[in-house]
Order: sequence, then C-alpha cells, then structure tokens
Amino acid sequence: MIKVAIVGGTGYTGVELLRLLLQHPQVELAVITSRGEAGRPVSDLFPSLAGRIDLAFSDVDVRSLATCDVVFFATPNGVAMQQVPTLLDAGARVIDLAADFRLRDPAAWERWYGMPHACPQFLEEAVYGLPELNRGRIAGARLVANPGCYPTAVTLGLLPLLRAGLVDPAELVADCKSGVSGAGRHVRADLAFCEANENFKAYGVFAHRHQPEIVQNLGAVCDGGQLDLTFVPHLLPLNRGIHATLYARLHAPAADLQAVYEAAYGAEPFVRVLPAGSHPQVSEVRAGNDCVLAVHAERRRVVVLSVIDNLVKGAAGQAIQNMNLMFGLDETLGLRHAAVMP
Amino acid sequence: MIKVAIVGGTGYTGVELLRLLLQHPQVELAVITSRGEAGRPVSDLFPSLAGRIDLAFSDVDVRSLATCDVVFFATPNGVAMQQVPTLLDAGARVIDLAADFRLRDPAAWERWYGMPHACPQFLEEAVYGLPELNRGRIAGARLVANPGCYPTAVTLGLLPLLRAGLVDPAELVADCKSGVSGAGRHVRADLAFCEANENFKAYGVFAHRHQPEIVQNLGAVCDGGQLDLTFVPHLLPLNRGIHATLYARLHAPAADLQAVYEAAYGAEPFVRVLPAGSHPQVSEVRAGNDCVLAVHAERRRVVVLSVIDNLVKGAAGQAIQNMNLMFGLDETLGLRHAAVMP
Amino acid sequence: MIKVAIVGGTGYTGVELLRLLLQHPQVELAVITSRGEAGRPVSDLFPSLAGRIDLAFSDVDVRSLATCDVVFFATPNGVAMQQVPTLLDAGARVIDLAADFRLRDPAAWERWYGMPHACPQFLEEAVYGLPELNRGRIAGARLVANPGCYPTAVTLGLLPLLRAGLVDPAELVADCKSGVSGAGRHVRADLAFCEANENFKAYGVFAHRHQPEIVQNLGAVCDGGQLDLTFVPHLLPLNRGIHATLYARLHAPAADLQAVYEAAYGAEPFVRVLPAGSHPQVSEVRAGNDCVLAVHAERRRVVVLSVIDNLVKGAAGQAIQNMNLMFGLDETLGLRHAAVMP
Amino acid sequence: MIKVAIVGGTGYTGVELLRLLLQHPQVELAVITSRGEAGRPVSDLFPSLAGRIDLAFSDVDVRSLATCDVVFFATPNGVAMQQVPTLLDAGARVIDLAADFRLRDPAAWERWYGMPHACPQFLEEAVYGLPELNRGRIAGARLVANPGCYPTAVTLGLLPLLRAGLVDPAELVADCKSGVSGAGRHVRADLAFCEANENFKAYGVFAHRHQPEIVQNLGAVCDGGQLDLTFVPHLLPLNRGIHATLYARLHAPAADLQAVYEAAYGAEPFVRVLPAGSHPQVSEVRAGNDCVLAVHAERRRVVVLSVIDNLVKGAAGQAIQNMNLMFGLDETLGLRHAAVMP
Repeated sequence: MIKVAIVGGTGYTGVELLRLLLQHPQVELAVITSRGEAGRPVSDLFPSLAGRIDLAFSDVDVRSLATCDVVFFATPNGVAMQQVPTLLDAGARVIDLAADFRLRDPAAWERWYGMPHACPQFLEEAVYGLPELNRGRIAGARLVANPGCYPTAVTLGLLPLLRAGLVDPAELVADCKSGVSGAGRHVRADLAFCEANENFKAYGVFAHRHQPEIVQNLGAVCDGGQLDLTFVPHLLPLNRGIHATLYARLHAPAADLQAVYEAAYGAEPFVRVLPAGSHPQVSEVRAGNDCVLAVHAERRRVVVLSVIDNLVKGAAGQAIQNMNLMFGLDETLGLRHAAVMP
Repeated sequence: MIKVAIVGGTGYTGVELLRLLLQHPQVELAVITSRGEAGRPVSDLFPSLAGRIDLAFSDVDVRSLATCDVVFFATPNGVAMQQVPTLLDAGARVIDLAADFRLRDPAAWERWYGMPHACPQFLEEAVYGLPELNRGRIAGARLVANPGCYPTAVTLGLLPLLRAGLVDPAELVADCKSGVSGAGRHVRADLAFCEANENFKAYGVFAHRHQPEIVQNLGAVCDGGQLDLTFVPHLLPLNRGIHATLYARLHAPAADLQAVYEAAYGAEPFVRVLPAGSHPQVSEVRAGNDCVLAVHAERRRVVVLSVIDNLVKGAAGQAIQNMNLMFGLDETLGLRHAAVMP
Repeated sequence: MIKVAIVGGTGYTGVELLRLLLQHPQVELAVITSRGEAGRPVSDLFPSLAGRIDLAFSDVDVRSLATCDVVFFATPNGVAMQQVPTLLDAGARVIDLAADFRLRDPAAWERWYGMPHACPQFLEEAVYGLPELNRGRIAGARLVANPGCYPTAVTLGLLPLLRAGLVDPAELVADCKSGVSGAGRHVRADLAFCEANENFKAYGVFAHRHQPEIVQNLGAVCDGGQLDLTFVPHLLPLNRGIHATLYARLHAPAADLQAVYEAAYGAEPFVRVLPAGSHPQVSEVRAGNDCVLAVHAERRRVVVLSVIDNLVKGAAGQAIQNMNLMFGLDETLGLRHAAVMP
Repeated sequence: MIKVAIVGGTGYTGVELLRLLLQHPQVELAVITSRGEAGRPVSDLFPSLAGRIDLAFSDVDVRSLATCDVVFFATPNGVAMQQVPTLLDAGARVIDLAADFRLRDPAAWERWYGMPHACPQFLEEAVYGLPELNRGRIAGARLVANPGCYPTAVTLGLLPLLRAGLVDPAELVADCKSGVSGAGRHVRADLAFCEANENFKAYGVFAHRHQPEIVQNLGAVCDGGQLDLTFVPHLLPLNRGIHATLYARLHAPAADLQAVYEAAYGAEPFVRVLPAGSHPQVSEVRAGNDCVLAVHAERRRVVVLSVIDNLVKGAAGQAIQNMNLMFGLDETLGLRHAAVMP
C-alpha cells in the first residue's frame, strides 16, 4: 500500500483527489492538511465523501508528511515550493498539482506568477507529469509537476502535428473553454451562480498563466523559437470539462492526419482518437480520466478538437496516473471507471 | 463471477447499469439487448463507456438470456412481464427496473399502467427490492421488482415515522422534485434543453403512477385504509437527483425524531441521517448510491428531507444492491465509490 | 413625469428596478444611491444597462432624495426605516422593497429580523403593497411595504380558498422553490456556481422570515388564530422564478374551485388562472409581471400551483405596479411586456 | 401603424418576433400563420405571450398576407422563396429570417442548401439586412434577407479590420459558440436537456451553412479571392447568446485598433465597443438587440470578442431594426429595452 498525504485538500482539486484515491486499491490515505479547516472532519466540509472517509483535516506538519510515500500538493501556487526541499530530503516523493515546478525557467516563473521561485535548484529535476510525453522519466521521478488543465488538453491535441512537422508553428490558435470548477473553489463575484449561469465570456486574453506552459511543451518538439500560439480561455456555464478547439495551418494539404493521430495515441490508455469527422463532447469524459480527440482538415486548414475533465485528466486523475507510474503500478489503477453520463 | 444480461439497455437507466456493473468486481457482462440498436457497439451509442466495454447490442434471444445468472430489465413498462416466466423457468433470476412487478394487485396495475398484467401469478412471488424494507426476502428471491425513484426517496423518508406510529397517516404530503433524467432518454418536446433549462414545473398532479406504489409501501406499515398521501412530482433543471420534501403531522409533539431516524437507519450502509437542523443536497449523492435524510419538527408539524440520485439509489444502483443480496455478496460491492462533486 | 430615486441599487432587485423603470413612459430616473459604488457609472456595474442610462451612483443625500416624487428602497433590511420619517416629512412617497414595513407588529419584526424597529409609529400607516389585496389603500398611500417574493406567490395562491372559507386554515403547506437571484447579489460560498448548479436543497425549514409575513396575509382573511402553515423554501438551479406548490384540505369535496379562482382573479391584470388540469411553468413568467395559477382537487385534497418571477412580480415589477397606483396611472404602465421565452 | 404578418411563427424566432413586435408602438399584428397549428390560439402554444396577444395561428393565405405592409418569414429554409414573388407583386414588403435570399449566387445556394433556388431573379434585388453594412439600401428595399446569427456576430467583429486593410484575409479564424435556441425549436435527440446540459461540443466543422454567408460579407470589403476563414460553431449549454472569438494576423503591429473600432461603430445605436482590455459577456445582451465588441492585440496577433443574443440581434431584433429602416421609422423603435440581467 502507498501511504499518501494531501496538502491543502479543501478545493475542488482536493475533493477530486480524495474521491479518486478512495477508490484506488493500493492507496492508504494517511494525512490531509488544511490550515483553515484543521480539526474538521473531511466529510463535514465535503458531504459527498460522507461514509467513505474518517480523516479530519490537520495542520501542516512536515514530519508527519515525511512519513508518507507520496505527498500531493493541492495548494495555491507558491506553497509547494516552500516545503518540497524538506520533503524530498526526508525521502518522500512529491506530486505538485499547482504550478510551482511546471516552468523550467525561474525567470519565466517569477514573471508569470509574480514571486521569486523558492527553490529553483529543483526545477531541473522536476519532471513535467504528462505521461504521454514523459512516461519514462515520471517513473523514476522524486518530484512531478502535474500539468495545468488547459496545457493538458492543448498539448495532447497539438503534439502529433508538431512532432510530425506537419504544421507551421508560427500560426497556432488554441481557443479553450473550461467549466467553472477550473477557477477553483473561490468565493468570487464573477463565479456566483447568477453571474456564470446562462453566461459565457472569454477572460485573460494574452495574459493567462497557462500560455508559457503550453509554449514550453510544444516548443520542445518543434523549432521553439518560431512558435507563436494565441491562447484564449473562456468560462463555460457547467461544472466540469474542458474543450480545446485548436487551429493550425498545414505545410501541405496531403497528410493523412487521422493515421498520424492514431499512430501517436494508439497505445495510450487514456487518449482516444475518434473516427474522422467526429466531434467529441465534454460529457463523454465527465468524471473520467480520458482525453478524447478528433482531427478535421480541409485544404491547408486543420482543426483539432480535444476534451478532458479539467478535474480528472486535467488535475487529480493525471496526478494519480503519475503516482501509479512512480510506484511501478499499472498506470490505470484506480482510474478505469467509466465517465458519468448524463 | 456472476454472468449478467441486460435487456433494453439504451436508456439512461441502461447506461447507468453498465457504468456501475463495469466497476463491479464479481460481474461478467455477457449480453445486452436492444431491438432498435442490435449490432451496434455499445460504446458507439454511449461514448462515455468507450474503452471500457467491447459488447455490441444484440437482439433479444431468450435462450442466450437464460444462460445468464441474472437478467436486468431496463425496458419500458410491460416488457419484462412477457419474458419473466420463461426466464425463471430456465433458472435465471430477474431484476426488473420497470414497474411490472411493483404493485401486488393486478387490478391496480391494469388501472395505472393501462394494460392487463401478463403474468399475475408471479406478483405474489416477486419481492419489492427496497433492501431497507425487504433485505431478507430479497436474498432468497428469484424475481425482484426494483422500486421506482420517487417511491425510494419517499418511502425511506416516511417509513420510520409510520412504523413508530408517530404521525397521522391520513395527512401526508410528498412534494418531490426530480432531475430530467428521471423522465428517461426520450426525445420529447418538453424535455428539450430550451424548454427544461431555466424552468421548473409540477406535472401529473394526482395522476402519477408512483402514487399507488408509495401508498402500497407505506400502507404496509400502518393502517393502510386510513392512508392519505398527496404526491406532487416536479421537473428540476438538472440531470440527476431527487429531492423529496415530506410533510406529516405528529400525534403529539414530544417525540425525539432524530433518535427514531438514527435507530431506524444506523445499520444501513446506504442511508445516512444528518444531524438535526441539516438540509441535504442532491449534489452530495450525485452518481452515488446513498439516500440522505434530515428531520425537522416544530410543534406537531414534521418535515423530512430525503435526497437520492434517481439513476443510482433510484434505479441502477439499487438494482445492483439487490443483485448483491440475491447472490450472497457484500451488499455494498461495486457501490462504495463516493459521490461526484462538483 | 414622476421623478424617481432608488436607494441602494446595486443588487439584483436594483438592476431589475432600473431595467423596468427605464422602459416606463412616465418616469424620470433622477437619483440612484450606493455607499459602496458612489461615483461609478451605473452601466459600469451593470453592463446590461449600457447605452440605456447615463446616471452614476451617488452617496445617500436625504435632501436630493426629498426632491423626488417617490423613493424606492432596494436596500438590506433595516435601512429604509432609518430614513423614511424624514422623507415622508419632506413630502416624498416611499416604496420599500425590503421588509422594514411588512409586519404590522413591531415585536414580531424585532424577533424575526433581530433588531428593534426604528419607527414603529409608521407601521400602522404603511400599506402592504399587494395590489390584489389592497389596491384601494395603495392608491392613497405615502408609504408602501412591497411584499416579499415568497409571500406574493403563496398569498395569491391561497387567498381565494381562505376567503371563501373552503379549506381548513390549520393544515396548510407551502412548498416553495426559488431561483438563485432570490438570495440576492451576495458573494457567498453556497451561491457559487459549482455549488448551486446541478444542485437542489431546502433551506431555513421553520426559520424563514417570510413565514410570519405569509401568516399575516392569510390570517387577515380567515380565523388567524387557527392558522397553521408549514413553509419550506428551496433553492432552484436557475436565475429567476418562484414556484409555490400549495397544499390544503377542503372542508367538503364539492366546491367548484376553478370557478372560485376565476371569479377571484378575472379582473386582475397580472394574475392568470390556467384551465383546470394545467401546470404553470416558471419560464412562462420569466422577466414578466404575471402570477400564473392552477388549481387541482381530488376528494378533500387541493393543490394550488403558483408561479412568478421573483425579481418582477416578486419585487421590482410589483413595486412599479404600486407606484402606478399611487400616482393614479394605469396600473399596467411599463409592465405590459411579454415574458422572455426561451 | 404598420400592418404586419408573420409566416411560420411556431419556432423560437417566431415567438421572439412576437414578443418584440408586441412592444413596438407602430405595429399592428394582423396575421400569423402555421400549417401545423392553424386555429390554435398563439398564447396556447406560447404561454409566455398569454394576455398579450389575441391572435390564433391561421393557414397560409397569400391574399391575406398581401394586405399587410410587411411579411416576416420565420420559416425553414426554402419556404419564403416560394411565396416572395407573389407577395412583392401584390405590393407587400418581405423580411426573410431564413436563408433564402442571403447568398447572391444561386449555385452556391443550391450547393449549401441542397435545393435549387425557386426565384433566383430576386437575389439581385434582395438586400442583405445588416444595417451597419447596408443601412441606406435597406431603407429602400422591398425584400430584405435578414442575416444569420453567426454571420451577424462574425461580420460585425471582423469588418473594421478588413475594411481598414489591417489584417491578412487569408488567415482568419472564427471560433463561435451559440446557445441552444440557435438550433431552433426542434425535437432532436442531441438537443434534449440531459444531452446538452453540462455539455459542450463543436459541430459542423468545415460544413456549416453560415460559412459562405460570412465569406460573402467579408469578401465584399477586401480581396475576396484571398479570403480564407476557418469557422467552427459550438453548442453552449444555455438558452440564448452567441460569443464569437475572432483571430486575425495584423500586417503590422502598430495600429491603434481601439480607435479603428470606435470610429467604425461610434454612431451605431446597437453596436458597443468596450474599453481596451475588456471581455464582453453574453449575459449583458440577453434579450436585447446589442452587439458588444472588444479588441485585443499583441504584436501581430489580434483577437476580437463579439457577443449578441442570437434571437434578437441575431434574428428577430435585427429583422425589426430592418423594418424600422424600411418604413422610415427611428431605427431603434421597439428595441430600446435593456438586456435582462440576471
């Protein structure tokens, strides 16, 4: 059994981690911390877990965390980097669901996240936890940076095209739509029901922190200097789900893109490529760990559609997929359940 | 392993049965039938199951059904009763998720469902599959009538009061609200998105078929001749969930109702009684098999709040709970997963 | 032209008042106050009004309010009662959309609202602004207490039965469901999108402040000492709309209730009685000022269904209806627009 | 008073036309036809109009239509073109809300709409009813082709850039999202509540009929031969609203795009350009006739955000705006009401 701790489990990512870890046959949930809720039974804050979990939130105590095999950070950005060095020293492994270890360049991190990095010496060692990209390195990692939700959907969608050198990296568009849980469990005016319901809007045009993360991922497989991606996120009036609509321009119109995608992902347990002409729906991945893709091309224009559940493949599910890899388990353990429909 | 067949698996109850059976460790899904979709892969109709199931829908063939240990009917009312005698003769057990075997009185069945009963001789043998009511008899049953969604929420909510003889059975009100999936996977004008979204309405006042089923359940534990229940169902603009608000009048104001409910359900794996003063939410049982209750009393008025997921405890989950009982398994097998939040 | 001021126009009731007053042919919007937003253009806070209004929020200044013909208070409970004496002295008329002048008994007010009343001497003069009940007195009023949203739906639904003495006042149930805007434009955890969406719950069982208001309304037309009403409000996952499902017990089963309701409301411009057997929907009154009713009876049980838009007939629209009466205008002026469907 | 007929008023466009025409001070609604609903009171099909309209649907009778000043067609594609020649001969004017007269090239029409055009001789005379493009010609028109909903949002969004020659017409992307009412009032499986709710998907990639209409509009103001637009529509889980996210590439990064847009639309009554850095929301135009735009640029990338209500500015409201122009009325008559929020 893997002894697991969660730091900061009071957000939607936290409750989703709990939901999934509770059904994992090789996990023993040992510690879950929250400064604000210390002492409160977890099922009191999250009645959806009542009867399934006996733990209470505890204060952060590095010694008790260090007795665990793996520590998940489901904290705001900037928290994990304060504690990671101590935990790694103590022999625990760490999976950070926040952004602290996603960008390899500390200057970029400081620019986008507004604070200096607390332990830049670990950025080199940290492995970006997208199994479809880094499966081998994740297996040997002590420290995994779990990808952002948008970067997961966009990277999986565009990777085959860029790897095969089929499209112009200087003309990419990622028009992304996320359910409201992607914004976290904050009490914020624009996330109030009457504001978000029956509404739709873009936000953070040219200013979203997932932009450099996507560019880092895609730049690694093509001429990064040339890469130019316009990324626009939007807020969807639903709880869960990301739909990325990705636009690129083919160097030549001849390619059999369907074959390219099927070859790229044929062996992947959690990426499905739909038949040509299909349109994936966010409902078909609700509460499941799949990424579903479809590719459309006409002349030199190509459109890739990519859907995930932002809380599963875009956060907690992918973190568990990474844990499975790090501990030599079947990668799909605890994640084989079907999506919830309707 | 229990060899399982599903007859008529193309509705929401069918896809939910599949979702839950696929995660059941003792089940082998052998057959799933559909007249309209015979030959079509199940995951083609239900992309939420893609990668999790290889079966295709087949035509109804009683011989192949009869080779299974248990046959679930997720068909429209009136179908199961045509095939049950043959299947029971062949040694299979049957769990009917439709209404064919719920009412003990064939005349009542004909009146409410508009057709004569095809095998009234089995109504006596059929066990009403509410484990909290009939656990022992379900364990030995060949034929289980899985309860309706509203009757599950209402019966569990009112049973302790009536059993204890605390309230007047002649003055009961059940104001019930159901998510749209309760109406089935029909293509119907009033279930179109723009009609049901941002809308709410009552329907079938004094005319809903779940009325006699609820009355049969409650009448069995009190002076049934006196029972008078007003039942009004409403359509909620959400996918899943039932909330029953139940009103009764105490014979005397003194009773400690909280203790009554905790005693009634303290040993139940899927019924939770909230602390006094609580308000259960349908979101806390989403995709899970729990029924959550809260009791409020003031002077002689008592209000019971009862929530379930209409597709799980109100249909497919309860059917699997019954299957577990019928086959001597742990009653909670395959049903221990937490609710999906948000 | 009627010179109008609004005090505290930053909530949903405020923006709805503005929307409706802007389309009123006899109104000149002169002042709109907000302590927190003073100086900010109204259309900056409410982009839905952009291009339709040039005003900015101002600080509360009793002198400028006193120059108006009528002052609407769209403030939290307890604010209007501080300013009403001065404004009435200065010759303005007041319509309070909060609860300050709804209860005639200052002790009841203090008990339910948790503060002593600042000007109990005006409770006698204040007219409860339900035109269907008090049309004549509203026309001559200086101070109108605009009814609460639930009390509007419930009172209009039960009044004909009680007036005609047809039902037992000691056994009334009002099961009410309101869209989220009824909770106001607060930033509160349980009103966050992911909490309220795909969710439904009761709240404030036996403890909602609209209970004494409803009882006061209904008690006035029957033997109030005997009146016993169980009122349970619920939160609907939609923006606007109230549906009240009302249960009563007939003294005798013979009454032609349809005729009773049609007689009661035949001359009312904003109350519609549907044909027998109907089920009104909240969507049919969305953004309109109608209350739509349907009556169902079976033996001695009667169920009345009542729908309104909580922000229009339940707040701002009814306030304007009252203003029209107070100023001798056609009662329907500015309120004749159809509901918005879908 | 303008005597108005509506042909085919049983869809969402029809009920919206009725809602808006009923509040128009210069309109007399004389005839509304429906083959399927002839004889049925309009308010019976559309309870949202109850008490506001006395008309019943009638069979199509060209003579009675011909007595009207203007006939609106809210019919499926291919119906108006059968009747327009007769009506124009009889002296009526026609506003077609379907697509029959939108494309100037009858071959293109046949290709995209799957049937030969019944009166191609009128395509030359028909005026494309986008007032911001064709105000002068609309005023003198007998026959107006009311624009599609997506083409309205996309054309208004991209027009200033293309007119000013600032962007490369060969690299345009229009990622568009529409509420479900845009699909019409059809009873279709994928438009059922449980399918569309909590869901989001693209549809008709490279195959939507609004593509040639947008290209025709934009090609007219730039080198049309070069124009290459990728248009992807998506289905939003809400009733009303379109959000178009438009991507283009500047020839040079220097332009003051904010000034370009403000100059283009400063005098327009129904197009608002938000301050730089803004993100318009579909909720701020709900039930109103505005198009709201925001422009974002970074280096050579430009993103334009454009929102409308698909049933108002995208259909019925724009049709009335056209009617006002055709009859010499103030263009905003009957359309000045504010948006409905929340």
